[in-house]
Amino acid sequence: MSSLPSNIPEKTIERLSEYRRTLMNLHAQGISHIFSHVLAGIHGITAVQVRRDLMLIGFSSDTKKGYDVEVLIEFIGSILDSASPMHVAVIGMGHLGQAITKYFNQKGLNLRIVASFDIDPKKVGKNIDGIPCLHMDDFEKMVDEMDINIIVLSSPTEVASELVVPIINAGIKGVLNFTSKPLNFPRGIVVENYDITTLLEKVAYLVKESEENNM
Amino acid sequence: MSSLPSNIPEKTIERLSEYRRTLMNLHAQGISHIFSHVLAGIHGITAVQVRRDLMLIGFSSDTKKGYDVEVLIEFIGSILDSASPMHVAVIGMGHLGQAITKYFNQKGLNLRIVASFDIDPKKVGKNIDGIPCLHMDDFEKMVDEMDINIIVLSSPTEVASELVVPIINAGIKGVLNFTSKPLNFPRGIVVENYDITTLLEKVAYLVKESEENNM
Repeated sequence: MSSLPSNIPEKTIERLSEYRRTLMNLHAQGISHIFSHVLAGIHGITAVQVRRDLMLIGFSSDTKKGYDVEVLIEFIGSILDSASPMHVAVIGMGHLGQAITKYFNQKGLNLRIVASFDIDPKKVGKNIDGIPCLHMDDFEKMVDEMDINIIVLSSPTEVASELVVPIINAGIKGVLNFTSKPLNFPRGIVVENYDITTLLEKVAYLVKESEENNM
Repeated sequence: MSSLPSNIPEKTIERLSEYRRTLMNLHAQGISHIFSHVLAGIHGITAVQVRRDLMLIGFSSDTKKGYDVEVLIEFIGSILDSASPMHVAVIGMGHLGQAITKYFNQKGLNLRIVASFDIDPKKVGKNIDGIPCLHMDDFEKMVDEMDINIIVLSSPTEVASELVVPIINAGIKGVLNFTSKPLNFPRGIVVENYDITTLLEKVAYLVKESEENNM
């Protein structure tokens, strides 16, 4: 059992993912060190926030040159990444599923989208964005064969509920649900829901509040 | 100036948006009342959470029949919605932009996607999902003419930084950024960032933690 700190806040996990991506870009540009306030500036946050996040994961550095970029990339990896690669599959290769496979940047991560699933005969059997599109009928079999742990759900909202049982039966451990259907998975399966209508309503609410506060 | 409660937690705002959608579905099915534990069950949360959210927005109800569905829909609307309609535009009508316009469910909301912007000649000038696709060159003019307050950013990540200044100059008040580029907007502009790679990394991290905790 590892001695990783548990209970790192989810917002910190999200920021660590973003820091790492920035650090990898900097590393690719040949930059070897970065100060906390510069990393903070790139992300539009305070240096205090950056230092707090890194303290939370146990990263300390006392060089006057700033953080060593390569060392910090590896340290964040030791927190975020699993020891063995995690495999992801996307269910539903409409516009949203295809956007996901296009946007997902696996560079340097121990995380890979290995398959997609659909029922559209024009898509099944093809490689879309370098990823094989398989038929939903073969879902449980292929999850087992390809050692898939995580599902991204980007099917039409109307069919989302029908996918819950196959996902549970296949032994999936985590679901990223982009449909607007609230789905009930048993405890023990990680579920994160992100629905465009809710996200837009939230932005609209915050805009409204900021306008009212400025009257 | 309204006497709306401020400082409602963002997670509560998100849940209110989800409750309202469920309540509108129930209303359409002719259901007139619902108990907190039933609404909670639909969303996979506790009745305590539902009651706490509604208490936070000042909704009280002492009927033994459960919440009046229509009254609650209106009450949530009085919290979430602005008095006048808010107009949204999507920048970037690739797969992600088209998924957004397809998935966004404006039923009952005071929020509308009124335009999209792109530079692809095959898209500009067409109606995509019932929404006119305009050229990015006309952005500031059309934001003014169409009274657009909120932008959804679904452009390729590489061009995202070039859009910051036009967005600020056009007087946009809120940005929902789906690209993986951290964007620096001035204080006063609401910005919410959701990047697929970060979301997937978070799910993978939580799966890893739950597996380690079960060893």
